[in-house]
Amino acid sequence: MRNMSESELTDVVVERYAGTTDPRLKEILQSLIRHLHAFAREVRLTEAEWMAGVLFLTATGQKCDDKRQEMILLSDNLGLSSLVNMVSANVPEGATETTVLGPFYVPNSPDRGWGESVLLRESDELPLMIHGTVRTNEGVKIPNASIEVWQTDSNGMYDIQDETQPEDNLRGRYHANKDGAFLIRTIRPTSYPIPTDGPVGELLQATNRHPFRPAHVHAIVSAPGYRTLTTHLFDVEDKYLDSDVVFAVKESLIRTFVKNESPADAEKFGLHGPFWELANDFILTKAA
Amino acid sequence: MRNMSESELTDVVVERYAGTTDPRLKEILQSLIRHLHAFAREVRLTEAEWMAGVLFLTATGQKCDDKRQEMILLSDNLGLSSLVNMVSANVPEGATETTVLGPFYVPNSPDRGWGESVLLRESDELPLMIHGTVRTNEGVKIPNASIEVWQTDSNGMYDIQDETQPEDNLRGRYHANKDGAFLIRTIRPTSYPIPTDGPVGELLQATNRHPFRPAHVHAIVSAPGYRTLTTHLFDVEDKYLDSDVVFAVKESLIRTFVKNESPADAEKFGLHGPFWELANDFILTKAA
Repeated sequence: MRNMSESELTDVVVERYAGTTDPRLKEILQSLIRHLHAFAREVRLTEAEWMAGVLFLTATGQKCDDKRQEMILLSDNLGLSSLVNMVSANVPEGATETTVLGPFYVPNSPDRGWGESVLLRESDELPLMIHGTVRTNEGVKIPNASIEVWQTDSNGMYDIQDETQPEDNLRGRYHANKDGAFLIRTIRPTSYPIPTDGPVGELLQATNRHPFRPAHVHAIVSAPGYRTLTTHLFDVEDKYLDSDVVFAVKESLIRTFVKNESPADAEKFGLHGPFWELANDFILTKAA
Repeated sequence: MRNMSESELTDVVVERYAGTTDPRLKEILQSLIRHLHAFAREVRLTEAEWMAGVLFLTATGQKCDDKRQEMILLSDNLGLSSLVNMVSANVPEGATETTVLGPFYVPNSPDRGWGESVLLRESDELPLMIHGTVRTNEGVKIPNASIEVWQTDSNGMYDIQDETQPEDNLRGRYHANKDGAFLIRTIRPTSYPIPTDGPVGELLQATNRHPFRPAHVHAIVSAPGYRTLTTHLFDVEDKYLDSDVVFAVKESLIRTFVKNESPADAEKFGLHGPFWELANDFILTKAA
């Protein structure tokens, strides 16, 4: 074990992890070691390049705080988050597809009432009303689901990135009623750049990639007995749908926001003028 | 690009990095993406496992400060540092082999005079005198080389880990003379555990691996016109030589420390009693 070839070294390292207690952790670590070593051998990684990588990952970890998760952003930008989503999603035909969580989710969003606005500032923008039913693909209504939503404000920033926004602006937890119906009030989302003032921003610059995500509303829909759905609703009119910096767009998640100018419809939602409307069901899958 | 298979996603991500300005960075990133994705597909990584990995890497970055480099420690523990050393070493037959830098190197060590001790505390231990010549494999003496050495104290800790040690204890930069000769005074190194109070310690525990490195003296030897040599001198009597936690032992770097009880030899080195002795040449390679 003292005079090893490159591939013998990999075998020795993998073998040294054979005593891992948890068989799944063992499987993951041994696979990770083999693939990581294969990468270093393939590109003939130099010590200076290795050190640059060490310092990049260190800086990425150190950029994280209670409001910033740069390591998720890195994973997103390498397409790893989307791949993991694909690998583990296993969504049956007909159910709402999942996509990445992203780095801006905050647990324990405040509760919002029926049709209450998540926009906590004054605004001249038209409201966006999202209504529908939480149900199964067979049409069974799922009562009392939780629907957490979050999105950027019209300046392209989430509340946790922007001190000028009220806390929990454009973020909240709605509750479907006993018939599975819900009514969300927000504004139409905008495309926005991911944060570029950290290591991931340097990576984007070095690789000549634009930092934009197409406009979307994030949602996590959960109900007892069903798999929790983490997804986005994308705006069909967005110009970044085919070049999302984090590779998270799925065709089935693209929605058309329809301008509704009917006073009668507005009144139904407690509004007094035109609004954007999206009829959207969330279709869940039974838990295993 | 919106309804992709797993392997199509990888191709799309790789292609999105095609505009990287530096061709070597492009090569490295595209290879890294392919291998990282292959790993996630192979183990069918779940979102919970992915999140555990994100949080582990974040914590590893955040454990780093000006005296602690946990990301290097992680790389060391996955055998990546040793592999990169192998891949990039390319040491010609006969020259001193290289090994990993490790996380405890501190730049700008204080200069030490001829035979001056790097041990900065009172001690009853026998001195270890390391003497030899910095030279080429053809026997050409290399004048005025710099030889930085660092090692743990007998409690198994480096100065930067241990507030009870004087600053720069067992750390210093020696200078070979015009004939390439040098004389280092230290103490015999001991085996020691790597730090286990961080994420890497958790990894060791979960994988039932011991945390020990076999006793060694670190050295970086540099001289104008020659490749800088980063190496260790290991103690042949150490019980961890075949299970070094960071996989850095090479047969050619194992040394025998000889007890010398000759008063005449002691006097030659300015000593007054028995000492450990190591005759060791550092054999450098011409820079490309």
